[in-house]
Amino acid sequence: MEKLIITVATTGAQTTREHTPYVPLTPKEIADSVIESWKAGAAIAHIHVRDKDGNNTVDLNVYKEVIDRVRDKCDIILNLTTAGGLEMSDEDRLRVCELNPEMATFDAGTMNFGTDVFHNTPRFLENLATEMKKREIKPEIEIFDIGMIHNALRIAQKGLLENPFHFQFVLGVHGGMPATPKNLMYLIDSIPEGSTWSAIGASKDQLTINTMSILLGGHVRVGMEDSVYYRKGELAKTNAQFVERIVQLSHTLGREIATPNEARDILQLSKKLIKG
Amino acid sequence: MEKLIITVATTGAQTTREHTPYVPLTPKEIADSVIESWKAGAAIAHIHVRDKDGNNTVDLNVYKEVIDRVRDKCDIILNLTTAGGLEMSDEDRLRVCELNPEMATFDAGTMNFGTDVFHNTPRFLENLATEMKKREIKPEIEIFDIGMIHNALRIAQKGLLENPFHFQFVLGVHGGMPATPKNLMYLIDSIPEGSTWSAIGASKDQLTINTMSILLGGHVRVGMEDSVYYRKGELAKTNAQFVERIVQLSHTLGREIATPNEARDILQLSKKLIKG
Amino acid sequence: MEKLIITVATTGAQTTREHTPYVPLTPKEIADSVIESWKAGAAIAHIHVRDKDGNNTVDLNVYKEVIDRVRDKCDIILNLTTAGGLEMSDEDRLRVCELNPEMATFDAGTMNFGTDVFHNTPRFLENLATEMKKREIKPEIEIFDIGMIHNALRIAQKGLLENPFHFQFVLGVHGGMPATPKNLMYLIDSIPEGSTWSAIGASKDQLTINTMSILLGGHVRVGMEDSVYYRKGELAKTNAQFVERIVQLSHTLGREIATPNEARDILQLSKKLIKG
Amino acid sequence: MEKLIITVATTGAQTTREHTPYVPLTPKEIADSVIESWKAGAAIAHIHVRDKDGNNTVDLNVYKEVIDRVRDKCDIILNLTTAGGLEMSDEDRLRVCELNPEMATFDAGTMNFGTDVFHNTPRFLENLATEMKKREIKPEIEIFDIGMIHNALRIAQKGLLENPFHFQFVLGVHGGMPATPKNLMYLIDSIPEGSTWSAIGASKDQLTINTMSILLGGHVRVGMEDSVYYRKGELAKTNAQFVERIVQLSHTLGREIATPNEARDILQLSKKLIKG
Ligand SMILES: [Zn+2]
Ligand SMILES: [Zn+2]
Ligand SMILES: [Zn+2]
Ligand SMILES: [Zn+2]
Repeated sequence: MEKLIITVATTGAQTTREHTPYVPLTPKEIADSVIESWKAGAAIAHIHVRDKDGNNTVDLNVYKEVIDRVRDKCDIILNLTTAGGLEMSDEDRLRVCELNPEMATFDAGTMNFGTDVFHNTPRFLENLATEMKKREIKPEIEIFDIGMIHNALRIAQKGLLENPFHFQFVLGVHGGMPATPKNLMYLIDSIPEGSTWSAIGASKDQLTINTMSILLGGHVRVGMEDSVYYRKGELAKTNAQFVERIVQLSHTLGREIATPNEARDILQLSKKLIKG
Repeated sequence: MEKLIITVATTGAQTTREHTPYVPLTPKEIADSVIESWKAGAAIAHIHVRDKDGNNTVDLNVYKEVIDRVRDKCDIILNLTTAGGLEMSDEDRLRVCELNPEMATFDAGTMNFGTDVFHNTPRFLENLATEMKKREIKPEIEIFDIGMIHNALRIAQKGLLENPFHFQFVLGVHGGMPATPKNLMYLIDSIPEGSTWSAIGASKDQLTINTMSILLGGHVRVGMEDSVYYRKGELAKTNAQFVERIVQLSHTLGREIATPNEARDILQLSKKLIKG
Repeated sequence: MEKLIITVATTGAQTTREHTPYVPLTPKEIADSVIESWKAGAAIAHIHVRDKDGNNTVDLNVYKEVIDRVRDKCDIILNLTTAGGLEMSDEDRLRVCELNPEMATFDAGTMNFGTDVFHNTPRFLENLATEMKKREIKPEIEIFDIGMIHNALRIAQKGLLENPFHFQFVLGVHGGMPATPKNLMYLIDSIPEGSTWSAIGASKDQLTINTMSILLGGHVRVGMEDSVYYRKGELAKTNAQFVERIVQLSHTLGREIATPNEARDILQLSKKLIKG
Repeated sequence: MEKLIITVATTGAQTTREHTPYVPLTPKEIADSVIESWKAGAAIAHIHVRDKDGNNTVDLNVYKEVIDRVRDKCDIILNLTTAGGLEMSDEDRLRVCELNPEMATFDAGTMNFGTDVFHNTPRFLENLATEMKKREIKPEIEIFDIGMIHNALRIAQKGLLENPFHFQFVLGVHGGMPATPKNLMYLIDSIPEGSTWSAIGASKDQLTINTMSILLGGHVRVGMEDSVYYRKGELAKTNAQFVERIVQLSHTLGREIATPNEARDILQLSKKLIKG
């Protein structure tokens, strides 16, 4: 089985200090958490940034500070969010591509999301795919439900997304598919052969979905974007804790961990490592 | 196996005279098509209305004219759309409940829909469920993807939708699940035991999905809202044609057809037949 | 979708005059029933023979009489049973290969079968595969449960069965998988891509499984080996009746019927049509 | 989620000193391995016995010696094999019931098994079920393929097996279902609600299937009957090693381990603990 790629999502758009005092929010905190996670075994860091008040921002300078701090210490793959937060405009969301990251997220459809709506209109998806293709940014195609797979495949038929695809299944959001092993297996059955995939279980289902991914040959994402508890009733103190647990589980289950460069090969990233 | 309930959707919001010269658009045309379909075996009519220019409208007087004309001739169950068209406001969509139909649609989530977005926000869904419950209108819970089932079940947990549920699986819309037998079976596997269900295959997949439904104990919807071709390259001349084919198929496959009153029993409609 | 191949199994090993007065038993009756079924649209005839008392026999002369009578009138593909009856010895079962039919059955494992056991030991399977390969007889790999698919694939790995495989799923025997649409779909999911398949639903489930096969791109088998009732409470008078119903259903569902020569292409039969 | 029941199968019928020098074969070795496994967390011991030459035996005195030695030290549930070895007669297999164990295996059908055949004829299954019911021995219904579930359910319809059922899915035997997560999930989907289940993955797939069972709410069996390697290339030195790994995995995954008495409650064992 392929080596396991661990993505750490340190911060996200929704986790606040009310949820946990340990979520990294400033560029320095985020970069430190990424570096610590890389030491623990993470090959990819999925990055959201916040302004001084801890609110979501798309300020490219804040991204740059995180990138510089991370690049100063390690070769982890940087995967920037193009969602930013449910309140962001399409223009603001597209702008992050200007940073030319190796990877960025591509949320493949519109859906209810908790008590809100997460907009990824057909037009936005085409614009985003066009921009990412032009800049050779590898799309992490985020899938919250079956129909989104086919949204992405239709865009691929127009030549805007390229084979082999890399899917990130996000399970357990209210509005998308629940985080069950059965749903995960149905998603896997629904993607083109030759694709790579990773999976996220929101909140209490994180560990179940992660373990399924290790067993089934997929990859995993962990971190405070998805879950703030290390186990029932116990807040995680660091993002690295989640990474360490996956490394240990994967070792027990007989699967090796990919380094950033091994992950670049598995995902066929076309860009070279770029300093921020 | 339960008798088969056939719903006819004569008109819809998207079918135009450009698609087919045979789509009924005026109140008289719609009512005549409903009555003809009832004669052929339909137990439920799903109703959209148009203004004098053939555009979608939520004018209650137009609905009333259709209802009066239908009620004058037959006891078919009337199931009014609460979608109306992708461009309608939430307020306009809710207003149709004032007509106190026996059934109305409940589209259980937001999604890309072709090149547009079909909005059914969490707030709208709660408002619609509240209104339908108050008026004892049976919701036809329209499901375009797995997550929508769970949107509905969460609203049910708040007491706003009631068991047993009736689901309408709408397969083949760009933005939702593709119209495959496998997807249909996965949907069936994902609803609570004791629910009833029906299924629609958009366009060329209508007949496949209809036949699956007959075999699997579900119910069917046909009509020019979903498909304008009777078979490849041949436009249907009437909505009743689609109903007749289903009646014949169901006979061959050994399943009887439900009358409107038998359908009322199967679906446990709580309202009495109301004159428009 | 590929044209539909209809196999008629006129007689089988278990159907008796007690079950139905209409089952063909003598060589002339069997041949006449085959020819009538071919006229109705069958492309393959699956042949069992009986002795003068109506008991199962492996007497090659009886097979020859059937073959001669059929070949005198039509080019239907002949598919001889290598099962013969649960009581036959392995030697007797192998001997039918000496007739060099275009196709023969290959039952891919041992199982309880009603109140008996149907023996297809690992050794027998290898011997049968060897013999069929040598004589270029196309195996119809009969599958009663998931494990049998893998029995066949292991034999294929030894070079004794060749790609593309043709599977016949036999559902509804007590001892094998029940005849449900869900089980059929799981079987289809479990075979190598590029395989062809057909399916049988024993007894009352024949028509459901046949219709699923038409919809899903598989092929069908009908006949008094599998079911003696045309519909509930009504015995079929001829095997051709079953064929006619499938032809009509397939027409309604938009799928064309394969002639024997078209079936030879679809199944990639390597043998030429041989006179008996 | 219910606490996890770990069964240890120390010896089996097929593992020999050629496979591993560490397999316990004498009554003392078997009992010591059971007791050590119980200390590590096993709640059930599945028992096969061997004669002085290490060959399978159904000598009740040998069973008794194992039982006495185990009962002297611990309250682990004893689950005796009724298979004994592929070469045993039906009479010999039935006789083990005379020992009145709390549980015994019930292999629910006939199948190819490696290069042999494992016979569990319809008649034998009815006799075995009758005997176990009379003596209130809880059947562990061993399932190697889908059809076997239905063999068991038909026997249950005759009143010889009682609800709630306990299934042991045995995956990976040549002749049965391969040991894949997907097959396991299909089996789980195919049993009556309210049943309990456990699963075995033969050989290299043991750990994958065990982990799936922990995640999905099933129970696990480990031991040298199923696998002699602790990990790739490394023979297990003791059966307890396998138990320890499962205890640790289950702890990581947040599921507690059942004691023998907790297992008795979960499985609704009707017998009291009996001294050998
Ligand atoms: Zn994110
Ligand atoms: Zn509508
Ligand atoms: Zn046959
Ligand atoms: Zn055993």
